[in-house]
Amino acid sequence: MKNIYLDNSSTTKPSKKVIKSINNALENNYGNPSSLHNKGLKAERNLKKSRKNIAQKLEVSQKEIFFTSGGTEANNLALKGITEKYKNRGRHLVTTKIEHPSVLNVFRYLEKNGFKVSYLDVDENGLISLKDLRKSINKNTILVSIMHVNNEIGSIQPIAEAGKIIKEENHLCFFHSDTVQSFGKLYLNPKKWNVDLLSISGHKIHGPKGIGALYCKNNIELEPLILGGGQENNLRSGTENTAGIAGLNTAVTELPKITKKNKYNKQINHLKNHFLKKLEENKNKLPDFKINTPVDNKSAPHIINISFLGIRGEIIVHCLEKEGIYISTGSACHSQKKEQSNTLNAINLSQKMKNGTVRISFSTYNSIKEINYTIQKLIEQLNFITS
Amino acid sequence: MKNIYLDNSSTTKPSKKVIKSINNALENNYGNPSSLHNKGLKAERNLKKSRKNIAQKLEVSQKEIFFTSGGTEANNLALKGITEKYKNRGRHLVTTKIEHPSVLNVFRYLEKNGFKVSYLDVDENGLISLKDLRKSINKNTILVSIMHVNNEIGSIQPIAEAGKIIKEENHLCFFHSDTVQSFGKLYLNPKKWNVDLLSISGHKIHGPKGIGALYCKNNIELEPLILGGGQENNLRSGTENTAGIAGLNTAVTELPKITKKNKYNKQINHLKNHFLKKLEENKNKLPDFKINTPVDNKSAPHIINISFLGIRGEIIVHCLEKEGIYISTGSACHSQKKEQSNTLNAINLSQKMKNGTVRISFSTYNSIKEINYTIQKLIEQLNFITS
Repeated sequence: MKNIYLDNSSTTKPSKKVIKSINNALENNYGNPSSLHNKGLKAERNLKKSRKNIAQKLEVSQKEIFFTSGGTEANNLALKGITEKYKNRGRHLVTTKIEHPSVLNVFRYLEKNGFKVSYLDVDENGLISLKDLRKSINKNTILVSIMHVNNEIGSIQPIAEAGKIIKEENHLCFFHSDTVQSFGKLYLNPKKWNVDLLSISGHKIHGPKGIGALYCKNNIELEPLILGGGQENNLRSGTENTAGIAGLNTAVTELPKITKKNKYNKQINHLKNHFLKKLEENKNKLPDFKINTPVDNKSAPHIINISFLGIRGEIIVHCLEKEGIYISTGSACHSQKKEQSNTLNAINLSQKMKNGTVRISFSTYNSIKEINYTIQKLIEQLNFITS
Repeated sequence: MKNIYLDNSSTTKPSKKVIKSINNALENNYGNPSSLHNKGLKAERNLKKSRKNIAQKLEVSQKEIFFTSGGTEANNLALKGITEKYKNRGRHLVTTKIEHPSVLNVFRYLEKNGFKVSYLDVDENGLISLKDLRKSINKNTILVSIMHVNNEIGSIQPIAEAGKIIKEENHLCFFHSDTVQSFGKLYLNPKKWNVDLLSISGHKIHGPKGIGALYCKNNIELEPLILGGGQENNLRSGTENTAGIAGLNTAVTELPKITKKNKYNKQINHLKNHFLKKLEENKNKLPDFKINTPVDNKSAPHIINISFLGIRGEIIVHCLEKEGIYISTGSACHSQKKEQSNTLNAINLSQKMKNGTVRISFSTYNSIKEINYTIQKLIEQLNFITS
């Protein structure tokens, strides 16, 4: 049986080196970083190393990196933390209609708690309008949150331009970006892009689940979500997940070099483009389909979202699974619920198309051979279903 | 060089089986539990197994167990979650003066946010008065939080009796207990003891750091701290830390059988009593000391807190460390800060005694031989320091 894992936007397989470093932390470095003795100091030293490494990757200071239990907590800490701390400055917030639930659901909570939220529309490519963004900001706007890469269709928002506009319109307004899907896949530069807060997650980059980090620009105050022993410079209490942090550190070290010039993770992008080419070549062997992911390098290198007309996404997922190929219908968060995807609603996909949507997402562990096999099986299975 | 780890209240060494199960989860079970396909279902099944196992240990239903990133988050979720949800029922809360910072600091936060908090005193053994508890509760009291075992001196609060009194005085009042230090060491029965919410942590029982759980009695509503994809029955969003949960599960499985009849972890209790006996036997070879831990099985089986008159605790910690023996001055949370311990303040220890305080805490990994060696080195080092 094949084992072709193409659900890497949902979660990734931890790398061998990541597993090794987690093991090492558990076996040889089990001290509590807050302990006075050597075992504590050793654990604390390793924490610092990891923090420095992640900071370097983002071109920020290590004092600006705070470990959390994942991307979801990082998003919650940023959004609840800023709004609680700066609510007396203004009660207006801006975000988009296609954010991850860990952002959208916090804004809905904040709406119930005295804040006014402007939700930006997106076009059929899942892109916000910078004009709309500019118009949405006023003197009471204290926070804008825009994701870098959408987790379902892979659209890339113009974060650098957005940051410029936000600060032009209201220099006191904070800017948060959920970069869980883009970190390691695309060039990121919070300092240059006027991003004040930025969330990353371990398990999307071949690290472990249960660990993430928040970049929070120097001198910005946040109200902590979790109080206690004062770890993470009083921003996030609780004994640090030292093994998880060691794993995240290794995952970050293993990320390919992405620069302003070479701003894509090329290896994955190559896989995506090959898949799209093969789809196009085999168009006449497949039922009608629509690619919801913006093409021509306007989307993230690892996500393809396709709707097949007249076939339910779940059926496609299960049929491919029988062949040892793992894809998804959309984000994992929506998979088991009957909820509609906010993203697919926002790009105005017809209900028929929405029903037939699948997401295929790549990692550096995939190969051209796997993609060829997947295309072949996709053709076979779709013909079997519709025959 | 010896490696005698006697700081097990701070954190424990993960067991070999725990490490193996974390490894297995990382290598073979990396699916996202929310995914529709097999890898997701397998991850989800393992989650359920772990939840069931932990629930059985606590004699509660698996639907009442919610995974968190640790004991600190479990405490925060319980206290903030209840007070946010039931604040219209009343604004009075009760706790003790010797709680862990992840409880005390939440109460201080709640005080700033419109709640009135009664902090119960403790006697010189670190025990609350049940009379005081009864008097403290009124019709506006919505929550009482009392830790089971104190993390610094090991005193055991009468949780069963407290639960009875709380419900007698106000049957609508919720009862939370931080059992991070007692789980696996002492008999626990939230259902019989009228405990509605109870926090546990993985890394205190030879599991990994970064994972814990909250027991929340059926039908009690909590406002979540972390919003998003709706995991953990909407109480705690974020992709589940499947490897951490696997590790916690194994740690729980490895716990010794503790029953109502045999309510102590005997093996550790034996070590503690041996240490106390040896201290007593060698009294004339040691400087004046005071044992702050209540004796005669009135304290947890794993903690001894001692003050040596005229010698700073930090110096003792570092001198023993040179011999490969790891102890602490108090809780890890206080170790690196200049803050005073709330517990030592509350039991009315003189400043001189407080300065000379150390905590020695055992696990099943320690041996009588290690304790004999530690006593010998303690005598040598204390004589060296004071000579």
